[in-house]
Amino acid sequence: MDQKRYKRKIYLEDKPRPKAREELLAAFGLPPRKEWVKVEDALGRITAEPVFASTSMPHYHASAMDGIAVNAADTYSAHEQNPLRLAYGEQFVYVDTGNAIPAQYNAVIMIENVNVIDDQTIEIIEPATPWQHIRPIGEDIVQEEMIFPQGHKLRPADLGSLLAARITNLEVVNKPVVSIIPTGNELIEVTDEPVPGKIIEFNGTVFANFVKEWGGNPRLSGIVKDEPEKIKEALLLAAETSDIIVINAGSSAGSKDFTVHIIGEIGTVFTHGVAARPGKPVILGKINEKPVVGVPGYPVSAYLALEWFVRPLICKYLQIPEPKRQTIQVKLGRRIVSTMGQEDFIRINIGYVNGEYVANPLTRAAGVTMSYVRADGLLIVPADVLGYEQGETAEAELLKPLEEVTNSIVFSGSHDLTIDLLSSQIKQKRYDMKIISSHVGSMAGLMAIRKGEAHVAGIHLLDPETGEYNLTYVKKLLDDMDIVLFPFLKRKQGWFVPEGNPFEIQSVADIAAKNAHFVNRQRGAGTRILFDLLLKEAGLAPDSITGYSREMFSHLSVAAEVKENAGAVGLGIFPAARAMGLSFIPVADEEYDLVMTKEFFESEKGRLLVSVIQSEEFRESVEKIGGYKVVADAAPKIG
Amino acid sequence: MDQKRYKRKIYLEDKPRPKAREELLAAFGLPPRKEWVKVEDALGRITAEPVFASTSMPHYHASAMDGIAVNAADTYSAHEQNPLRLAYGEQFVYVDTGNAIPAQYNAVIMIENVNVIDDQTIEIIEPATPWQHIRPIGEDIVQEEMIFPQGHKLRPADLGSLLAARITNLEVVNKPVVSIIPTGNELIEVTDEPVPGKIIEFNGTVFANFVKEWGGNPRLSGIVKDEPEKIKEALLLAAETSDIIVINAGSSAGSKDFTVHIIGEIGTVFTHGVAARPGKPVILGKINEKPVVGVPGYPVSAYLALEWFVRPLICKYLQIPEPKRQTIQVKLGRRIVSTMGQEDFIRINIGYVNGEYVANPLTRAAGVTMSYVRADGLLIVPADVLGYEQGETAEAELLKPLEEVTNSIVFSGSHDLTIDLLSSQIKQKRYDMKIISSHVGSMAGLMAIRKGEAHVAGIHLLDPETGEYNLTYVKKLLDDMDIVLFPFLKRKQGWFVPEGNPFEIQSVADIAAKNAHFVNRQRGAGTRILFDLLLKEAGLAPDSITGYSREMFSHLSVAAEVKENAGAVGLGIFPAARAMGLSFIPVADEEYDLVMTKEFFESEKGRLLVSVIQSEEFRESVEKIGGYKVVADAAPKIG
Repeated sequence: MDQKRYKRKIYLEDKPRPKAREELLAAFGLPPRKEWVKVEDALGRITAEPVFASTSMPHYHASAMDGIAVNAADTYSAHEQNPLRLAYGEQFVYVDTGNAIPAQYNAVIMIENVNVIDDQTIEIIEPATPWQHIRPIGEDIVQEEMIFPQGHKLRPADLGSLLAARITNLEVVNKPVVSIIPTGNELIEVTDEPVPGKIIEFNGTVFANFVKEWGGNPRLSGIVKDEPEKIKEALLLAAETSDIIVINAGSSAGSKDFTVHIIGEIGTVFTHGVAARPGKPVILGKINEKPVVGVPGYPVSAYLALEWFVRPLICKYLQIPEPKRQTIQVKLGRRIVSTMGQEDFIRINIGYVNGEYVANPLTRAAGVTMSYVRADGLLIVPADVLGYEQGETAEAELLKPLEEVTNSIVFSGSHDLTIDLLSSQIKQKRYDMKIISSHVGSMAGLMAIRKGEAHVAGIHLLDPETGEYNLTYVKKLLDDMDIVLFPFLKRKQGWFVPEGNPFEIQSVADIAAKNAHFVNRQRGAGTRILFDLLLKEAGLAPDSITGYSREMFSHLSVAAEVKENAGAVGLGIFPAARAMGLSFIPVADEEYDLVMTKEFFESEKGRLLVSVIQSEEFRESVEKIGGYKVVADAAPKIG
Repeated sequence: MDQKRYKRKIYLEDKPRPKAREELLAAFGLPPRKEWVKVEDALGRITAEPVFASTSMPHYHASAMDGIAVNAADTYSAHEQNPLRLAYGEQFVYVDTGNAIPAQYNAVIMIENVNVIDDQTIEIIEPATPWQHIRPIGEDIVQEEMIFPQGHKLRPADLGSLLAARITNLEVVNKPVVSIIPTGNELIEVTDEPVPGKIIEFNGTVFANFVKEWGGNPRLSGIVKDEPEKIKEALLLAAETSDIIVINAGSSAGSKDFTVHIIGEIGTVFTHGVAARPGKPVILGKINEKPVVGVPGYPVSAYLALEWFVRPLICKYLQIPEPKRQTIQVKLGRRIVSTMGQEDFIRINIGYVNGEYVANPLTRAAGVTMSYVRADGLLIVPADVLGYEQGETAEAELLKPLEEVTNSIVFSGSHDLTIDLLSSQIKQKRYDMKIISSHVGSMAGLMAIRKGEAHVAGIHLLDPETGEYNLTYVKKLLDDMDIVLFPFLKRKQGWFVPEGNPFEIQSVADIAAKNAHFVNRQRGAGTRILFDLLLKEAGLAPDSITGYSREMFSHLSVAAEVKENAGAVGLGIFPAARAMGLSFIPVADEEYDLVMTKEFFESEKGRLLVSVIQSEEFRESVEKIGGYKVVADAAPKIG
């Protein structure tokens, strides 16, 4: 088959997602297959048929207490003023909890209320009422009673009731087999050497685990090359051997998009493109009466498309309702823009600050898996909404337990590698707490404190007038707030250069003179402010620096960039250079401090944060990295 | 060892549950063991150490689009009025999404914006900005970045990020080994023949599955007899081979309570008895520095004690926060009484009726597993609250997804076996819907409709004056409401007698004359009203009937009781007699109808209910049972 044949532009539909879903589900009956399993192995399985009790529980009249079994009528005269004696074997027998009540008795008196006179005689001072402290036959389960209907997902306690009803095996719905086919010439296995242009195949593993979590039985195939014959072969095999087919990549309108044509050729395409982002270029169709879902190559698009279309197919097969995520109302820390007619699935961080859940969007780039991994929630902007203004309230689906969101310390501001270490040590002390951080730079960190979007901001802002760090900026920007400026670290800033410093970079003048490619930081970052100051001091204009206009958002990103480009130089902190095996030319010793409201500083979270920072363990682990000195025992600069 | 030695009364403490929990957790460091697992097998596992990226993702500058790679500076002159031509190989190359950008280029132009002139030439009408449509190195993950802290529970998408960062194995926390020891002479395996006095051991299986669900590794031992030496041996072995020990039964203050003494002898007892019901007689202690939890024998007590004390131990071991259940506010349909100083864990049904979540308590009997299985939620009455009045609002923990509660049709009133069938067929049509039913009798069913606690009530109430069923009662009790009385079934009531009817019971007079043991129904049940009418017609007083005062709550319970007692007789519907293999002597043909508000009748749920009742499939399956005729196509008697 000619690959060129498929090399043409494809028009993607804008079908509303709910409509595409409905059409997909309506096209398949998905009658489940059934299998017998032992009760012990049935956790999480779905009953395929109603289950009826094989026996009653209890299956005899059982004593509910330790005591004596009596005939109630024999005891009516008993009274505190008129104790009654009963004869063993004739008028009573001893019973323990669970013992069968002999047929001639109809009540139990608790042992605590029995006065033992001798081996043959007891005395009581209160009459028994008929059937007291007796568990009648079938108190729990009556033989032939329906214990569960079909379509019931079995929980731990359910298994107990089945065994109690003397059921040892039951019919459950088979887990639907979901074939997963990764395609693409650029894909390599994780164990292969990654060369430029090759990407590790990991979507398949994610899909398989989503399918497992949703109750399906995933079958992940090897990587299939972007060749029509091979893709066709893989699809036909999957259609024969599975209940649902997932094929990855090849569903955008790019140059190697054979998949939609092949599905059309050997089956039917219902939908190609839905009005939702990311995840838009999804393919829905069927091959041999089996549903096939073509999910986009970009991971986040793929995860969402899988949830939109594969999860409902699995649930329909299992005949269970789709699970729903918990939702909460969040206040938007930033404006969110969307397109009319398109749903937007925005990954957000949610911080619980000043009694409000404040949401900030993460990157929308569909290739950034960490934006999904780090997200606390999903904000779904409906197709008929153009977006939300800052400060507006909207509903978000939680991707993490609410407790975790509520308990997190929200960190903003400048990036420093010790923040992860700090989070890790906080979690060691209180495993329901941690830091969620967004690296937005020192200035944006201060603004986050101002707007009540973060608990703590890390800043390193040099005032060229005074030569002092941080103090001036906090006073200027947060003057009207009750703030604590907490000394945290002294750290070294310096040039990141390829090993051995081949261009002999020692100053900003060298960068300009040798036309090195400079890897810059974003506006508002402390490191950027330092660089701009160095430029100014050297009397250089920004446009004398190659690469000045492109901005990176962290020390590690700068170092990674320098590592890949032998002609590059960056500015940043020592540990980032060391992590990437770069040489480091010291430029400045700076003060990296923490800003927080006095209220937070004095709160439980704040005290925990400070106690960890001041611990010997933290100091040791930070100073071991090199280039750091923890100064957390100094007095606050403000507050 | 002398068993008598342990035969003494034991005083149970009333320690507040949170205090007992805190003491237990404080007594153990529970340092986790770690193990290496493959990423593919790591779903749900907890990271034991922070995880750092082995590579960047992407690890090269990658094209984010299908198009051409260019040097942005070469394109600045391009304009709609001034198209710019670029030469292949010198000024541009073709790139697909994911391709590496050759070092001399720094931007990508989408293929849609490229006009191909010939094999060597393209034309553009818009300049490119530097780095547009390029995914820079580390856009997703930067090498050496901390991807996860320790204590992170791995979800499907997390596994993708690990593989993307070229991590194939990682260190996770071992699943703590939880030994489960069922004890008791009365226990038998589910495969053994159940004889009176013997109880199927099922708690162990429930515990094992709870432990599995909570992330532990359960080891369920065989049944251990109530003999001190054997129990001691089992405990010592468990202390050697596991991280946490659970021992079942023997923790009440009854006659065979060796466990607490043995734990005290070979270890330490911290707590014996907490101020919470059910679950009070729990034992908390340690043996060889391993925590041991002795849980009561009654299943519901045991499930709760396990959740209170074993789950936090597992979570502490795994260093993860304890999961919390979703809570909702419920309105109480009945008064709930509690004891000052005791927490009460009330299992409740929750119905969503008229826009409110209405809760009704299920039995408090700790031996009734189905009260936990059927419960929609748990209402926890705090120790300092004496209870709640009817109509009061309280918080409940959900045991089922909120959707399931919201979507259920709440059925009240008289018990009929076809209601389960109806629920099952509704679930077949809409697998997010079902009926939750409580069998409270016809009169209580009418009251539930009146109080807005149920959607539908099933009633069969004979008016002796008119000889008519149901109409009089609805008119009298629900006169001021807009009600539909929907004809549902005609069914046969009759005597349940042992096979062959040895006492030749034909009438209520025979029961009195032959002094048969009558198994009665509860006040307000239609069957009870019928029996009382038969008594009255025969001119007999209730006290002429043996067993009259004891009340059963369903046809099946009556039949089960008759089955076990050769001298007994009951009154009820045909299929219950048949299910238990009893003979059935017809007494009356009665009309079993459904009562609902007009509003519900016309709602989506109501229409679904009626459509299933009127389906041929339902009629067939009901009439196949015998003793029934579906009359659902008749006109409503009211409404």
